[in-house]
Amino acid sequence: MLAELRGLNEECGVFGIWGHEDAAQISYYGLHALQHRGQEGAGIVTKEGKKLHVVKDEGLVNEVFSGDAIKNLKGNAAIGQVRYTTENGRGIENVQPLVFRSTTGSLSIALNGNIVNAVELREHLERQGSIFQTASDTEVLAHLVKRTTSGTLTQRDRVKKALALLKGAFAFVMLTEDSLMVAQDPNTIRPLSIGKMGDAWVVASETCAFDIIGAECIRSVEPGELVIINDKGMHSERFAEASDRAMCSMEYVYFARPDSNIDGINIHSARKRCGKQLAREVKIEADVVTGVPDSSISAAIGFSEESGIPYELGLIKNRYVGRTFIQPSQELREKGVKMKLSPVQQVVQGKRVVMVDDSIVRGTTSKRIVRMLKEAGAKEVHVVIASPPLVSPCYYGVDISTDSELIATNRTVEEVRDLIEADSLTFLSADGMLKAIGRSPEMKNCGQCLACFTGNYPTEIYSDTAMPHEKEIVR
Amino acid sequence: MLAELRGLNEECGVFGIWGHEDAAQISYYGLHALQHRGQEGAGIVTKEGKKLHVVKDEGLVNEVFSGDAIKNLKGNAAIGQVRYTTENGRGIENVQPLVFRSTTGSLSIALNGNIVNAVELREHLERQGSIFQTASDTEVLAHLVKRTTSGTLTQRDRVKKALALLKGAFAFVMLTEDSLMVAQDPNTIRPLSIGKMGDAWVVASETCAFDIIGAECIRSVEPGELVIINDKGMHSERFAEASDRAMCSMEYVYFARPDSNIDGINIHSARKRCGKQLAREVKIEADVVTGVPDSSISAAIGFSEESGIPYELGLIKNRYVGRTFIQPSQELREKGVKMKLSPVQQVVQGKRVVMVDDSIVRGTTSKRIVRMLKEAGAKEVHVVIASPPLVSPCYYGVDISTDSELIATNRTVEEVRDLIEADSLTFLSADGMLKAIGRSPEMKNCGQCLACFTGNYPTEIYSDTAMPHEKEIVR
Amino acid sequence: MLAELRGLNEECGVFGIWGHEDAAQISYYGLHALQHRGQEGAGIVTKEGKKLHVVKDEGLVNEVFSGDAIKNLKGNAAIGQVRYTTENGRGIENVQPLVFRSTTGSLSIALNGNIVNAVELREHLERQGSIFQTASDTEVLAHLVKRTTSGTLTQRDRVKKALALLKGAFAFVMLTEDSLMVAQDPNTIRPLSIGKMGDAWVVASETCAFDIIGAECIRSVEPGELVIINDKGMHSERFAEASDRAMCSMEYVYFARPDSNIDGINIHSARKRCGKQLAREVKIEADVVTGVPDSSISAAIGFSEESGIPYELGLIKNRYVGRTFIQPSQELREKGVKMKLSPVQQVVQGKRVVMVDDSIVRGTTSKRIVRMLKEAGAKEVHVVIASPPLVSPCYYGVDISTDSELIATNRTVEEVRDLIEADSLTFLSADGMLKAIGRSPEMKNCGQCLACFTGNYPTEIYSDTAMPHEKEIVR
Amino acid sequence: MLAELRGLNEECGVFGIWGHEDAAQISYYGLHALQHRGQEGAGIVTKEGKKLHVVKDEGLVNEVFSGDAIKNLKGNAAIGQVRYTTENGRGIENVQPLVFRSTTGSLSIALNGNIVNAVELREHLERQGSIFQTASDTEVLAHLVKRTTSGTLTQRDRVKKALALLKGAFAFVMLTEDSLMVAQDPNTIRPLSIGKMGDAWVVASETCAFDIIGAECIRSVEPGELVIINDKGMHSERFAEASDRAMCSMEYVYFARPDSNIDGINIHSARKRCGKQLAREVKIEADVVTGVPDSSISAAIGFSEESGIPYELGLIKNRYVGRTFIQPSQELREKGVKMKLSPVQQVVQGKRVVMVDDSIVRGTTSKRIVRMLKEAGAKEVHVVIASPPLVSPCYYGVDISTDSELIATNRTVEEVRDLIEADSLTFLSADGMLKAIGRSPEMKNCGQCLACFTGNYPTEIYSDTAMPHEKEIVR
Repeated sequence: MLAELRGLNEECGVFGIWGHEDAAQISYYGLHALQHRGQEGAGIVTKEGKKLHVVKDEGLVNEVFSGDAIKNLKGNAAIGQVRYTTENGRGIENVQPLVFRSTTGSLSIALNGNIVNAVELREHLERQGSIFQTASDTEVLAHLVKRTTSGTLTQRDRVKKALALLKGAFAFVMLTEDSLMVAQDPNTIRPLSIGKMGDAWVVASETCAFDIIGAECIRSVEPGELVIINDKGMHSERFAEASDRAMCSMEYVYFARPDSNIDGINIHSARKRCGKQLAREVKIEADVVTGVPDSSISAAIGFSEESGIPYELGLIKNRYVGRTFIQPSQELREKGVKMKLSPVQQVVQGKRVVMVDDSIVRGTTSKRIVRMLKEAGAKEVHVVIASPPLVSPCYYGVDISTDSELIATNRTVEEVRDLIEADSLTFLSADGMLKAIGRSPEMKNCGQCLACFTGNYPTEIYSDTAMPHEKEIVR
Repeated sequence: MLAELRGLNEECGVFGIWGHEDAAQISYYGLHALQHRGQEGAGIVTKEGKKLHVVKDEGLVNEVFSGDAIKNLKGNAAIGQVRYTTENGRGIENVQPLVFRSTTGSLSIALNGNIVNAVELREHLERQGSIFQTASDTEVLAHLVKRTTSGTLTQRDRVKKALALLKGAFAFVMLTEDSLMVAQDPNTIRPLSIGKMGDAWVVASETCAFDIIGAECIRSVEPGELVIINDKGMHSERFAEASDRAMCSMEYVYFARPDSNIDGINIHSARKRCGKQLAREVKIEADVVTGVPDSSISAAIGFSEESGIPYELGLIKNRYVGRTFIQPSQELREKGVKMKLSPVQQVVQGKRVVMVDDSIVRGTTSKRIVRMLKEAGAKEVHVVIASPPLVSPCYYGVDISTDSELIATNRTVEEVRDLIEADSLTFLSADGMLKAIGRSPEMKNCGQCLACFTGNYPTEIYSDTAMPHEKEIVR
Repeated sequence: MLAELRGLNEECGVFGIWGHEDAAQISYYGLHALQHRGQEGAGIVTKEGKKLHVVKDEGLVNEVFSGDAIKNLKGNAAIGQVRYTTENGRGIENVQPLVFRSTTGSLSIALNGNIVNAVELREHLERQGSIFQTASDTEVLAHLVKRTTSGTLTQRDRVKKALALLKGAFAFVMLTEDSLMVAQDPNTIRPLSIGKMGDAWVVASETCAFDIIGAECIRSVEPGELVIINDKGMHSERFAEASDRAMCSMEYVYFARPDSNIDGINIHSARKRCGKQLAREVKIEADVVTGVPDSSISAAIGFSEESGIPYELGLIKNRYVGRTFIQPSQELREKGVKMKLSPVQQVVQGKRVVMVDDSIVRGTTSKRIVRMLKEAGAKEVHVVIASPPLVSPCYYGVDISTDSELIATNRTVEEVRDLIEADSLTFLSADGMLKAIGRSPEMKNCGQCLACFTGNYPTEIYSDTAMPHEKEIVR
Repeated sequence: MLAELRGLNEECGVFGIWGHEDAAQISYYGLHALQHRGQEGAGIVTKEGKKLHVVKDEGLVNEVFSGDAIKNLKGNAAIGQVRYTTENGRGIENVQPLVFRSTTGSLSIALNGNIVNAVELREHLERQGSIFQTASDTEVLAHLVKRTTSGTLTQRDRVKKALALLKGAFAFVMLTEDSLMVAQDPNTIRPLSIGKMGDAWVVASETCAFDIIGAECIRSVEPGELVIINDKGMHSERFAEASDRAMCSMEYVYFARPDSNIDGINIHSARKRCGKQLAREVKIEADVVTGVPDSSISAAIGFSEESGIPYELGLIKNRYVGRTFIQPSQELREKGVKMKLSPVQQVVQGKRVVMVDDSIVRGTTSKRIVRMLKEAGAKEVHVVIASPPLVSPCYYGVDISTDSELIATNRTVEEVRDLIEADSLTFLSADGMLKAIGRSPEMKNCGQCLACFTGNYPTEIYSDTAMPHEKEIVR
């Protein structure tokens, strides 16, 4: 489904590089490839000698780094982040990477994820005298590192001790005066990969960032691993025992770019297999298969291939929809003025249409598209969803705030079908999804997190666990 | 192929509306749907009583009409245009619609097309004392209308007399103090349709502009027809004899949006049929079919369906590539940094790939994509093109300046294949294309213009016929 | 008085240069010095070989020519213009210089002034088939030049014939493929000077433009003179008999910059002498003299020097008031929120204040300042005006639209004093002003235009003579 | 002298308001009046219930608060700051007010001044575990407040304890969930006044901010005073013993706006008296007196009045010089192209000119102006400076980094005169300045800080005392 149309937002994407003279520019390309993971803000911090330079702002990557911004970011190491869109207005202070300056050395941090015990840790830290200037969990880590000052600990040890206190989903990139550090939570809930670009080391939330810069993916960061990259090379340590792997299923289903691989599995291929599996799980008499662009195209192709029903472009996305687009008034909307997505009348007219989507959140968009197809003449609209029903909130960095927003919570499939006005509605089974994605069957849930489909969370959840969007008002 | 990657640009798109209180806003949506036809500049002229208001500037539709621009465009009739990108720098004076103010009534005109006898007409007019302030053919029409002042002619008659002097491809929309006028050249080289939106009349270069506003397409404008829309309704006249219909083939092949219909034929469907036809004309042993996004997707789906070779997303377009994107240096490019288009390694690795594209212009991009696929591990890359080889310049509004730019001119298919480093190269036959598109077989060339494939032009061409981009420097 | 506070606007300023490799950049500086003559729009046209390059837009000089705009304006000759602010919204097409392209050679023109027989000439030209795209008088000249095509006339002769048809105030700069031409109306109503900058020739509306670029003023352009500057040097011709010189008095009183000279008389010095003369014409018992910044400072200094009453900064202008300044609501304004101008309480409290201003237009601002001074504690406020009462409209390029807007029309000085709530009000006598400015006493009115003070116009005025701001809607 | 031309920058200006429904808009006007105190960045924090809203960015006040920014700042209390221009590039994180969010209540702080023991305090705080995200002294205060947590202290007491630890010049405004707090250092080095606007309380660095909003000045904040304003009214406490008053002399000489009063003394009047005093201290045979705009005009008027030498506008400032102004190349500059300041030739030609300036920093600008006047024909140029020679760095918020930059350090007046190429050079005596400004003669140095003229600092200076611009790189 179109990112613009739904209420399902990824926290962010992170990138890091060590040992390249064009560190800032490479980071720019990397963040550009990760732009789909966050459109609110972008930032890059570079290291020139012991000095950290920072440029960050609200906006898209190419807006934040227009003009000479990149040229001024000197140095041969960098970290960067793109951030997702909230509606809480301006919040430049929350744009990452955050920089913490200190007489004993500066530290910059960027995060993809959500710390489930952040509220508890903040309160603890504040009682000890810490002051917070942002709503970000990243600041919690910085304070923990600073506090862990018992005697003769090295910075590396202090970072490990601090990381060990965190619970939840977190993929961190950190830049210090002498190293790039990368940390992954014990369940590896968010993707994070390491690559090489000639002699330089790179890290990124998704491997598509490696492709754009011509880097090669080496491996994923391991559960509970702290990777230290410095002039002596790459060095791996553990800050916590590995738990069950629980990679976010929605990364495969919706978030990640089709050309990325997560743990060696290509996203497009996984989605196509989900579409095929879906076609095995349900038999529909229909004339055409169409996907809701952009994220459902792969599943739609798979469904078509397996079912033998021809794949068509039944829905076209307007490429030029931008953020400054003037919205039609309610009156004009009722007269039929529609932006963003158009049905292709000749393709659907008089046809029985299978409309493939990756997931249903609130259901309002699904209903709108079903109606649109019917108004364009579709005889029947069969909605097939290439994942199980979403029924539980996510505490690991996806902005599904409450289960009351989810149309499938406490509703039968038939009730949902009725609400979205489809002729039939089919969800992919959880087992079918796991099988189609194809991660290791020996692991629990094949190493995937199914919490939003089942309500079973791979980590502890606290009474005060806050979702990302709630942190704006936590104090 | 990606518009950003090629040297094949449409002149523009035009829109008009009569009898709607939100004329400017509706025009804004309409132009937005036509944005793919021109990204250089945009303009809207509205009529409020006898007063014409104009807002136009260089930039995308949503840039030109940001803020209060739309609100200030009062009135219940409007015309608008989007214009393509040239590299001749700023040229605000060339952005249309042009407005000609006169003590006897104002006139606004916008054009999609190219007048082949414009140079001759300009010289003639200048000798009579006319002064030109733009490089636009639209200004020629305005002067001709003004000059045609023998005695008691009505404005309508003067417009007809003026139109009759023009040769070439031209779809005009005109706004006067009391009517909206629409004119189509005798060959109907560029598409132009009339629709209704409730009681209001609308006209547009493509029907996708009707879909976005909830209007219904009534019919195409006929060869040599002048349509006058005013408070008395729609009235049709002829300013010239109809010639052989010669709708631009490249509209079907590349320019138009997949959800548009031209003369009742849907673009996506036509392209898909071209892909199918291509699969009938050539047999390739291959593992996957992939299209070059965005315009070749339909043909690729068709090729896959007919050949039975699975369709895959082997190439991913970066959605966020914008005009301010910082280009990698030559050095970085050589290191592999690539923007805009990424191969999906897991999809193509070790595979024999059929790469479907709509056309080849200079061949440089094709070669780059072939290389990209091979570097991503493709074993073989078979390029199939869903149209015949481009060998001749277009004088009808497409910016292919000289035949020396066209890789297929004076080269055999084998020579082209060698240059683009493909394992095989196949073009769709002209007959195959005509059949697949499916216009009336009784007409010459099925009513299509094949000039760029054959060098046979449907109109006279003059010794001083200039292509659009040349007019910037004609004086 | 502050330009921002009043309804008295100059048409524009023009600049030209011939024979300097940095022609565009020099023009930029020149226009910058003339910025006070017009803030609506700015444009520069350069000549590179036979090619004319143009950049123009709405906005201030440094906004229009930001970035690379100047670099792209290649060539060693240029003309430019700055234009005043109207409230008729966007009108990019009216920004000058205008460029007229022709197969026989291009022509660019910029104007400072107003043609009083423009409406008549336009109608005549339209009847002959001319088309107008702007509301500008400049376009009339271009058409006249084009029309004057009897046989073997040179371009120079055609320009002279065309100029001879114009009535009113006009200082033209023109750039052709081989020369820079400069023309002054037979009354020299608007200032226009010629200078040298090394080997290069420069022309400008005010000599302050010469100072900024280090050029030396040679002389003023003579009445009815056409100056042709080309590679052979400067050549002078006459296109009309000289009439009585009638230099605009308001140039001395208000428009021109204090560091400019007009016909050898420095503006600051002339204003100071007007202030002195005023102090001779009226005796006021007062404690301090203060001027309304910026244009009245010189007169205030003169008044103080002559009267012996100390000069003080009783009113301070806020330097940072810009065009995007958020205006206080009516409610806040009533609570005392005031922008732009502040009284200095300690200077005026308990004092009898002489408030010197250059002129009174509508009187609303004068009243506001008088009140402001009284609220700040001034015991008495005596308003003295360094020019006679404005009673008649100007048809020569100043935007005083109707005499009903002028507070002094049909009112006695006492009535005006009452309206502006001053304790006394004194205007400089016309004779006193002429004497103080100090132009040649042998000429009629010392060679000044006094029309706005007397209603006696130095040229014919036609029944359809339009003021500049009215031309926006003339058609 | 023109702010644009010199290396003497004020730290910033602060504003606060309590109890007005338009708190943000009033703050906007207030900051606008204080814009001359800082052009780098601007910010406003408002309090709506217990929630703090913040908008801040780099740029001028009207740039930062364009569009809807003000509307979104809801609440009836606010604080704001404008910040001066550094050349250390972007530093959005340093723009104030800073906001510190806490589970026990949020706190926002803005500062005008410089803490001389900041480096020591930071190191101490960091050793205790504090993390700093900015280079600002304001953050030091926040940490001190947070740390001072012994048992049952109220927030007010903690603020007082924290303030008591600070040394240097500091005028703070603070906004908490239930009060507006204002603090002044024990020497009152930077001005800070309290006013009333109807029922609302306002505070500002300069009284000109009160005038613009129609507020009345009540009094200055006292040495070592903490003023708490909340719904119960205004309440005053002491956090430190008062030391000798030492108001910055440069506020009177150069920084403050002429219409402001500091401790009841009007700035324009004080400057004019300095000019008069100067005329008493030196006798010069000259024809005209001219001031270097803008800040020296008052002194020039005074000098003229006392000496009897006529005051003239010998130098004109270009009002439109903006930050995007294209600078002439070195070559063009040598050819005489000059921006910003122009001599008025007719005023100075052949004359003996007294050029009055407020101070000399590096001397380069003085030399340039002297040359400019001579090139314009001045026979003699006598430079008189309305303050003593600057010889020592300022540690209290003025950006004079090292004494080696000051032309008068280790040079005799005659040596300086020679360097700036003046015919004579006179500085006002320190005693003359103190007498002319007119503060209480009973106090030490009349209650003024003379450190930059004498090297005697009113507070302790530490071995690690850093000037504002150095803090960017302190860590």
